[in-house]
Amino acid sequence: MSPAPPLLPLSVSLGDPGGIGPEVVAKCWDRRDELNLPPFVAVGDLRSVSVVWDGEIVVVDTPRDAESAFDIGLPLIPVPAAESSVPGVPTVAGAHCSLDSLEIAVGLARSGSVSAVVTGPVSKQQLYHIGFTHPGQTEFVAERCGVSPSNVAMMLAGPTLRTVPVTTHLPLHEAIACLPPALVEARARATLRGLQRNFGLVEPRLAIAGLNPHAGEGGSLGREEIDIIHPAIEALRAEGWRISGPHPADTMFHGAARARYDAALCMYHDQALIPLKALHFDEGVNLTLGLPVVRTAPDHGTAFDIAGEDRADPRAMAAAIRMAASCAAHRATQ
Amino acid sequence: MSPAPPLLPLSVSLGDPGGIGPEVVAKCWDRRDELNLPPFVAVGDLRSVSVVWDGEIVVVDTPRDAESAFDIGLPLIPVPAAESSVPGVPTVAGAHCSLDSLEIAVGLARSGSVSAVVTGPVSKQQLYHIGFTHPGQTEFVAERCGVSPSNVAMMLAGPTLRTVPVTTHLPLHEAIACLPPALVEARARATLRGLQRNFGLVEPRLAIAGLNPHAGEGGSLGREEIDIIHPAIEALRAEGWRISGPHPADTMFHGAARARYDAALCMYHDQALIPLKALHFDEGVNLTLGLPVVRTAPDHGTAFDIAGEDRADPRAMAAAIRMAASCAAHRATQ
Repeated sequence: MSPAPPLLPLSVSLGDPGGIGPEVVAKCWDRRDELNLPPFVAVGDLRSVSVVWDGEIVVVDTPRDAESAFDIGLPLIPVPAAESSVPGVPTVAGAHCSLDSLEIAVGLARSGSVSAVVTGPVSKQQLYHIGFTHPGQTEFVAERCGVSPSNVAMMLAGPTLRTVPVTTHLPLHEAIACLPPALVEARARATLRGLQRNFGLVEPRLAIAGLNPHAGEGGSLGREEIDIIHPAIEALRAEGWRISGPHPADTMFHGAARARYDAALCMYHDQALIPLKALHFDEGVNLTLGLPVVRTAPDHGTAFDIAGEDRADPRAMAAAIRMAASCAAHRATQ
Repeated sequence: MSPAPPLLPLSVSLGDPGGIGPEVVAKCWDRRDELNLPPFVAVGDLRSVSVVWDGEIVVVDTPRDAESAFDIGLPLIPVPAAESSVPGVPTVAGAHCSLDSLEIAVGLARSGSVSAVVTGPVSKQQLYHIGFTHPGQTEFVAERCGVSPSNVAMMLAGPTLRTVPVTTHLPLHEAIACLPPALVEARARATLRGLQRNFGLVEPRLAIAGLNPHAGEGGSLGREEIDIIHPAIEALRAEGWRISGPHPADTMFHGAARARYDAALCMYHDQALIPLKALHFDEGVNLTLGLPVVRTAPDHGTAFDIAGEDRADPRAMAAAIRMAASCAAHRATQ
């Protein structure tokens, strides 16, 4: 059952003008019928699209204009161009351009002018050069929405699996040391509420992974399950949530196991991303839970190495656009 | 291309008489044509099979007799019965029985009376009660073959992926602390030689995983890649092996990535087992590399909770038997 389409179009930031963002967004418009995409408006450098794509671009001022333009060409709200940008080459000018695109695309969502925002891939290293201090786009969007990063959660979603890591970009030994029960609980709550708001699941089922092999095997292979994860599970159950676990991580991602939960809360980055990408590499979507707006992103980077070669696969961007529209539609009914 | 069948039958220990081992071995004989299985002889408690299966059992003295008997019924070399054993109930008598079966099945392989040994699932907890001091069957088989456990490697193999963990049953924080370059190198060599001997790959390609998110991202997300894994890779390359890595673990298990290597060396238990079981849960085979004999096992446990209910799936046991036969055939040509 697909939900009714949202009333307003979506904003899609093109990301770094030298990456594959402009190409995959343009390809999404090209294949909008086949990929079953709702109307959206691109936000970014006009030239970064025209240099890699021959199709029609319709420059618009507002998302409202984009809706009628969507049948004619790719609607685009332009940002100041990164004149020096070339596909495949990360530059400082490109970083300014991607930050402008992100700022405008997110602003449109916060003001209610679009139903959701989808963010294209950026170069964090280039952004750091121009004074960007957030670990990534997720934290930037959270700040612009006035939400603390500890109350948002990064969900990776594919057709048959949704995972949320408790911690993301930390060395593994630090991720193990930084596992307070309060953080496990906070991420679990953000995930459960996110499943209700964005997927319309009234009583979502969350499976929580163990940290150690065989989920610690009763303490003989590690104590984090007993000391940290189990108390968090008890606290969540006391609030009425449907929680299972701690599960041995190796036996919770096969088909029959996946059917028993709506999302898996994982204890570290790779525990969440290994199964998601093994199963759904070309269609993984990054969805930020805990925000007042819907924000998704394709689960891939700038791919500078193949930019401008017409080789980029638009399926992950298309999946991110479809999921953003679906989440916005679910929210509109609440 | 399937290799020529081996000349001698295989021995298959039934494992714990109260587990699903007897049932899945009997079902394999039942479906031997459909599952494309070579002749094998079961080793274990006769009663543990007859109590869960109505088919014909042919008691034999030697594997040689098993070959002709295989068309008539399930050939079985009996061990002293665990009279008290009941499906679904682990007992001390059952542990003695599973150890006897394992000892005989392995002995037949060491003496060259069978072409390979396949081991059914045992209860380690019950074995520990009767003085078994090895962490698992793998280490027992290694000791009986006169090989140091540090020179063997546990490979998990499915139709499209083979993984080997550097460490197995350790708490995760210990697995990270116990990662000397020498062990990474030893496991890599056991894996590479194992690919040559058992799979007939003359120049095997080994992909080595990083430990941290994004393989440490140049040191900013952890230094084990720089300090431990990279030096090991350099040493292995200097010996002429085809090695790639360290790879970010989350992007090395999708279809296109798997096509670029013959096995993946993983830094801890779940890094190896999560992708293998997410992709190939019902047909995962555990293959011990570095032994003078071929030894495989199905990648599942005793499953006492469903034993005796005719619900056990024989596909993993069948995959273990087929792989053992294929490895033995490859070795026979060398």
